[in-house]
Amino acid sequence: MPLSTKRFRLTIAYDGTAYAGWQVQPGDPTVQAAVESVLRTLVGEAAEIKLHGSGRTDQGVHAHGQVAHVDLQTRMNGTALVRALNSRLPSDIRVLRATETKRDFHARRSARSKEYRYFVWNSAILPPDRRLYTAHIYWPLQVKPMQEAALHFVGEHDFAAFAANPNRVMETTVRAISMFTISKRGPLICFRVRGNGFLFKQVRSMVGYLLRVGQGAETPESVAELLKQHAPRTARVPTALPQGLFLWQVWY
Amino acid sequence: MPLSTKRFRLTIAYDGTAYAGWQVQPGDPTVQAAVESVLRTLVGEAAEIKLHGSGRTDQGVHAHGQVAHVDLQTRMNGTALVRALNSRLPSDIRVLRATETKRDFHARRSARSKEYRYFVWNSAILPPDRRLYTAHIYWPLQVKPMQEAALHFVGEHDFAAFAANPNRVMETTVRAISMFTISKRGPLICFRVRGNGFLFKQVRSMVGYLLRVGQGAETPESVAELLKQHAPRTARVPTALPQGLFLWQVWY
Repeated sequence: MPLSTKRFRLTIAYDGTAYAGWQVQPGDPTVQAAVESVLRTLVGEAAEIKLHGSGRTDQGVHAHGQVAHVDLQTRMNGTALVRALNSRLPSDIRVLRATETKRDFHARRSARSKEYRYFVWNSAILPPDRRLYTAHIYWPLQVKPMQEAALHFVGEHDFAAFAANPNRVMETTVRAISMFTISKRGPLICFRVRGNGFLFKQVRSMVGYLLRVGQGAETPESVAELLKQHAPRTARVPTALPQGLFLWQVWY
Repeated sequence: MPLSTKRFRLTIAYDGTAYAGWQVQPGDPTVQAAVESVLRTLVGEAAEIKLHGSGRTDQGVHAHGQVAHVDLQTRMNGTALVRALNSRLPSDIRVLRATETKRDFHARRSARSKEYRYFVWNSAILPPDRRLYTAHIYWPLQVKPMQEAALHFVGEHDFAAFAANPNRVMETTVRAISMFTISKRGPLICFRVRGNGFLFKQVRSMVGYLLRVGQGAETPESVAELLKQHAPRTARVPTALPQGLFLWQVWY
C-alpha cells in the first residue's frame, strides 16, 4: 500500500546562538536546514522535504515556540515523529509538539498573531548563565517611560520607522500591535509584544528605541511622532542585540 | 614608592561548560588558569600569581558564587579590579565582587560552610536554553520520597559511601550537612545542600542516589543504612551529571 502524504504542524524551540537564523542559507548552519536534514533521514533521502516556518528569525535569535508545517509520506503519528526528531536533532533544537493537520494549514499564511519576548539584564554584571539569552544594558533604565512609550506602539500604525530596509519591496509597512508590556523582576526586564505580523527587524528596532527612552535619550511621546512620519528608519532607531529576542508563540 | 601587597577576596560566577573544572591542569582550559592569566596581564607578566579557590569544581560544573583569594602588588582597589578583570575575561567568567581582606583570610581554610544547588528538568523534553545548566531526567520523579531521603543526609555522618575515590588519602570522610531541601516548580526540581565541607563528588553522588529514590529504585531509609556502613561508594550510588550543579555560595 502506498503511503499517503500527511501534513504536520511542528512547534519548535531553539537556541539560536549557533545558527545563522531560521531560514536555509547555502553554506551556513540554519535551524530550518537542520530540521529538514533530519526529516530527510527519517523519510528517505530522495524525498522532497520543505519545512515552512511561520516566519524567519535572524542570526542569534531564539525561539520558545516557532511553528512550522511539513508534508511527509510516513506511517508515523505526531508522537512518534517528535521522538524520532528529538533523538536525532542537536540538543539546541527541540521539537515540542507535532500534530497532523489539514492540508490547507500554512504556518506562515494561516498565522493570526505572534508574540515575541525580549530579555534585558540591567545591572553592572551579566551572569554567565544568562549571557546567551539576555541582552546586557549596564546603564540604569527607567521602566516607567519605556512602558509609556510602548503604549504608543499599540494599535494599527505604519511601522516604516521601526523596521530595517527589507530585501524585497514591501507592499505595506502597516501592521497592528495588540499588546506591548514591560515588566521588571530584579535586574531582569522582559518586553512582551504581540501583533498580527512584524516587519524585518521590527521587534529589535522597537526595543532598541525603547532602550533609548529608558536611558532618557528620547521621550515616550517621540514614538508617536516617528510613527506619524511614515518615513523609513534612521540612525535614531538602533537594532537591539539578537541574543535577547525569543519568538515566543504563534496563534492560528 | 614600592607597591605594597594586598590580599583580595574575589567572588566569581562561571559557566563551566567550556572548562575542565576550576583547578589549573596543564594543557586544559580551567577557570583558575583563565583568571590567573588575566591577573598577570594586569600586574605584570613577571609576577607570581596564585589564585586560591574555596575548593575545586569538576569539569562542566558551574559557579554562582565561587570565592577565591589572591595577593597582588597593585594600586587598584576592589571596584577597579572587578572592572579590569571583567573587561578582559571571557563572558562565561564574571568577577562579581573584589574586596581587600586581611592577610590571614584564606578562601579554602577560612570557609565555614558552602551551599551547592543542583537543577533537574523533569519532563519529556529539555528546553534548549536550559540544556547547559540543568540535568535532564525524563522519567517521572517523586519529590516526597526524595525529600524524606535527603533529611537522612542532614547532620554529621561518614559520607564514604557518597563520594568518589579521592586521589589523595583522606584523613576523614566525616562531614556535617546543615540543610538539604528539594523543591519543584513546574518541571524544574532544585536541590539545595549546605555543609561545612564536601568530599570529592559528594554532592553529585548524593543527588545521583536521591534521583534513584525519586524513581522508586531505592527507599528513603536506605540512605541511613548506607551512611551507617562506613564503606566506600559502590555502583548503587551513581554520579549525577555535572551540568546541573552550581557552587552557589561560600560563607566565612
